[in-house]
Amino acid sequence: MASATYNHRKYQPVEPVTGFTRTWPDRQVTEAPIWASVDLRDGNQALLEPMNVAQKQRLWHLLVKLGIKEIEVGFPSASQPDYDFTRWLIEENQIPDDVSIQVLVQAREELIAKTFESLKGVKKAVVHVYNSTSRIQRERVFGMGRDEIKDIAVRGARWVKEYAEKYPETDWTFQYSPESFTSTEVDYAVEVCDAVMDVWQPTPEKRCILNLPTTVEVGPPNHFADQVEYFCQHLNRRDSAIISVHTHNDRGGAVASAELALMAGADRVEGTLLGNGERTGNMDIVTLAINLYSQGVDPQLDLSNPDEIIQTCTECTGLPIHPRHPWIGELVYTAFSGSHQDAIRKSLKQQQSDEPWQVAYLPIDPTDLGRDYLAVIRVNSQSGKGGMTFLLERDFGISIPRWLQLELAPIVQQKSEQQGGELDSQIIHDLLIQHFVQDKAPVSLEGYRIERAGDNETLAASIRVEGVEQSIEGKGKGAMAAFINAWQARTGLDIHVVDYAEHAMGEGSDVAAAAYVQLNVAGQRVSGMAVDADTVSASLKAVVSGLNRSGTATQTVSADQAQQA
Amino acid sequence: MASATYNHRKYQPVEPVTGFTRTWPDRQVTEAPIWASVDLRDGNQALLEPMNVAQKQRLWHLLVKLGIKEIEVGFPSASQPDYDFTRWLIEENQIPDDVSIQVLVQAREELIAKTFESLKGVKKAVVHVYNSTSRIQRERVFGMGRDEIKDIAVRGARWVKEYAEKYPETDWTFQYSPESFTSTEVDYAVEVCDAVMDVWQPTPEKRCILNLPTTVEVGPPNHFADQVEYFCQHLNRRDSAIISVHTHNDRGGAVASAELALMAGADRVEGTLLGNGERTGNMDIVTLAINLYSQGVDPQLDLSNPDEIIQTCTECTGLPIHPRHPWIGELVYTAFSGSHQDAIRKSLKQQQSDEPWQVAYLPIDPTDLGRDYLAVIRVNSQSGKGGMTFLLERDFGISIPRWLQLELAPIVQQKSEQQGGELDSQIIHDLLIQHFVQDKAPVSLEGYRIERAGDNETLAASIRVEGVEQSIEGKGKGAMAAFINAWQARTGLDIHVVDYAEHAMGEGSDVAAAAYVQLNVAGQRVSGMAVDADTVSASLKAVVSGLNRSGTATQTVSADQAQQA
Repeated sequence: MASATYNHRKYQPVEPVTGFTRTWPDRQVTEAPIWASVDLRDGNQALLEPMNVAQKQRLWHLLVKLGIKEIEVGFPSASQPDYDFTRWLIEENQIPDDVSIQVLVQAREELIAKTFESLKGVKKAVVHVYNSTSRIQRERVFGMGRDEIKDIAVRGARWVKEYAEKYPETDWTFQYSPESFTSTEVDYAVEVCDAVMDVWQPTPEKRCILNLPTTVEVGPPNHFADQVEYFCQHLNRRDSAIISVHTHNDRGGAVASAELALMAGADRVEGTLLGNGERTGNMDIVTLAINLYSQGVDPQLDLSNPDEIIQTCTECTGLPIHPRHPWIGELVYTAFSGSHQDAIRKSLKQQQSDEPWQVAYLPIDPTDLGRDYLAVIRVNSQSGKGGMTFLLERDFGISIPRWLQLELAPIVQQKSEQQGGELDSQIIHDLLIQHFVQDKAPVSLEGYRIERAGDNETLAASIRVEGVEQSIEGKGKGAMAAFINAWQARTGLDIHVVDYAEHAMGEGSDVAAAAYVQLNVAGQRVSGMAVDADTVSASLKAVVSGLNRSGTATQTVSADQAQQA
Repeated sequence: MASATYNHRKYQPVEPVTGFTRTWPDRQVTEAPIWASVDLRDGNQALLEPMNVAQKQRLWHLLVKLGIKEIEVGFPSASQPDYDFTRWLIEENQIPDDVSIQVLVQAREELIAKTFESLKGVKKAVVHVYNSTSRIQRERVFGMGRDEIKDIAVRGARWVKEYAEKYPETDWTFQYSPESFTSTEVDYAVEVCDAVMDVWQPTPEKRCILNLPTTVEVGPPNHFADQVEYFCQHLNRRDSAIISVHTHNDRGGAVASAELALMAGADRVEGTLLGNGERTGNMDIVTLAINLYSQGVDPQLDLSNPDEIIQTCTECTGLPIHPRHPWIGELVYTAFSGSHQDAIRKSLKQQQSDEPWQVAYLPIDPTDLGRDYLAVIRVNSQSGKGGMTFLLERDFGISIPRWLQLELAPIVQQKSEQQGGELDSQIIHDLLIQHFVQDKAPVSLEGYRIERAGDNETLAASIRVEGVEQSIEGKGKGAMAAFINAWQARTGLDIHVVDYAEHAMGEGSDVAAAAYVQLNVAGQRVSGMAVDADTVSASLKAVVSGLNRSGTATQTVSADQAQQA
């Protein structure tokens, strides 16, 4: 045993919840909750390098685009960057009429005063006040009794109400969280929230939000559902409160806890895209929303282009997405087993467009999310060293990334079936080049000029489209980003880089660069590859290959508009 | 909307389970299940590049070391490498007396015959036969009715029994899975399993295993628990069956589904380390086991050195572990928020060694898993560009990896508090070098010779220990691995590389390499850094820094043994 302290006897199980009528296991979720994003607050706080202004703005625009209507934007009384961002949103008219921003604040008067100041002029907003209520927090952190802790909440609620009255031009919603709810005696949590509601006097027409966090996830999801149902049954004015949950993933159960809490009576869920947040992260809005979608429930969010979500989140947070991330990881729609592939093929063949989805091993249609199902058969099954990747590397110094391996595999397999046997490395190499290197037609890259100023590059490129030379220009953080920016301007298409890889081939004086890019062009994934003596040139040509392969390369904004007319 | 097919109306909710008495929400898990690993079968099948023999052997040894007693090792009738691996285990006496190997096979006679042949001479083994039973599989894949599908199962069970009788020297356990159980009508799943048990005639003394897979996770965890409890209540000979579950993570609920299934009556759980497996992966044994541990339940597994698990799994599968992976991801025991840090500090101070663990925001003691709690305060909070990482990069060309940032941050913070204000980049740089570059004493690297043959390197190094020159020699996949191998031989300590990074510093002729390594030495994490004109030398010196910092560098096998004597 490596650790001297490893000993389960130090820990105690969660207290069972009693004294209520459990009904949630008989329920199903039949409509979307109110979604609230805490990406810009909880998510941002948990980053080693917090987001800069440009990253926050980018994530904000994505959250709005997906259809999230309540967005916690920060802790403006505690953080100057959060204060400034809140002011930017208001003063630059960035908040659509149907979206509420939300800000977090502790139950202290000077912080509450500053919070309202930060919100001056906003049309509507949620002011979210909280204090810690668990026994450990009361006894070990604050050294206070139940009544003193409740008084903190009540005073906070009063200040929030008083300051709100000073800004009558805004449509205010009040939110209270008994922080560390999961470790709070549930009757005491009810008592504190009743006292807060006594101050706020909400009505069924103008409800307040009571937000129940698994600040630390300490029990299984059914235990949290019990706590939520107990809370809903015992609260004095249930009909005047929106019950919200905010779950963390310490035991890997953040999504399940939120889903079961919805059965138990919650109306609203706080979470983040891809589950970024403190420690093990927050509840992943994308996973829960697609869970509901897969049960025939309209999630009220547009998640049909997850590649945009992945690109924006990974670039803003600096955190990766795991290849097996539910619904949208890169390995989710692959099948390696022959019997799985056979079952999928047979059921896809029988699937009618006007009947419910019934395909073995594919719980949803991958094309809903802009993905393709990939039947991956290994060239030399389970040999571990005889596969196409190995052969390409050994014989050509080509090291293709995993996502390209997944796309090449069915092509190689089909060829292998036609020829009736194993393929040599030359044939595999030719298939790779033939399918993925398409940087000559209809579009080719003839030359380019790059200028760097500060963090930005401006790229002017000369391209040939079906034989006709043209110029395009764009800006971005790097040459590839600038080229894509230019292309978006030219075509009006939404383009994202899903993944990118580049490596040197060979050694010495004849060294060349191989570049691989996976694009998402107007919601569809497409890959491209190129080889060039220069690394920048290789990467741009890989993008050109991808654009040519997408079938959209000759499209332009005006042609598109002409077609619509 | 990017995808034309995005439409929730294509999908239907799961059927509620009725006709049973639901008792599981009133239960808690109070003892560990029987753990069964499917890393070498389900996990391996889901890899683009399946494990080679050396990787399989390495993972096998780890599984045994952790204390897993039932290990599915492959599909020997369908895969020659699996057949060979099974024979290696048996013929080379690799299976401890208290461990059972398990093999998977379809319900076809020739495959069952070959399976028993692969197991010849084994002391005890689980033969796991399955067929698909869901409506979609019956109608769309096999074109068969309920009775025909049941007949497949019964015939399979008969062949298993008949062939087992030909090898009476082995202690056989029979296992049956109604594959796609979650999408099978639950009364029909009971009917098929009853029929299988009628063939096998198990007894309470010699039970068979009935394994219920969420082959595809199609509903929330409580729905699966209902299915499991219904199944247990309706089975004819419940006392003669070990009820096993095998959950997948399509909706992010694999761990929760398994945990709730244990409340619902399951005795056994199949899963993999870190959750590798088809699509979104299998149930993660590590997460579920630590979930139980955190509730005061002895998991019956030694998980006190997760770094060994992480290194072995990531190297064998080629898949990463997410920084927010429950319990053991690199960001799990960090706290960025001042109020969290304050609460943790206060509760740690009051924590007595003889009382239950009661620390805010830390559900378990990180030292149980060989980790440290890290209070990370940013040098310039939320500026996004003013942090220590940015200053080191801008002024010194030093780009430290995230795990080193996490370790450096509290050191910088402490210095900043002493000095009362922000630190300039020179001070931060000096703190980094002073703490992490310790490649001179007590041990220094004087020289080395590397020889490469095939995939392996042999390294002979000349080191100086407290002034005395010595020679060591080791082998490995690369220079660093060979050096660590040599060091393990010298000291008898268990050493793992948790993470490693290296980059060039500066440009032109005075280019140098900076290397960073995070080691786990005898269960404790320690980091080291070095700078050198040569990249190999920098990496080896970084290891030396780590070993010196660990306080174990002068330890040797003989000194250690002398101490014990």
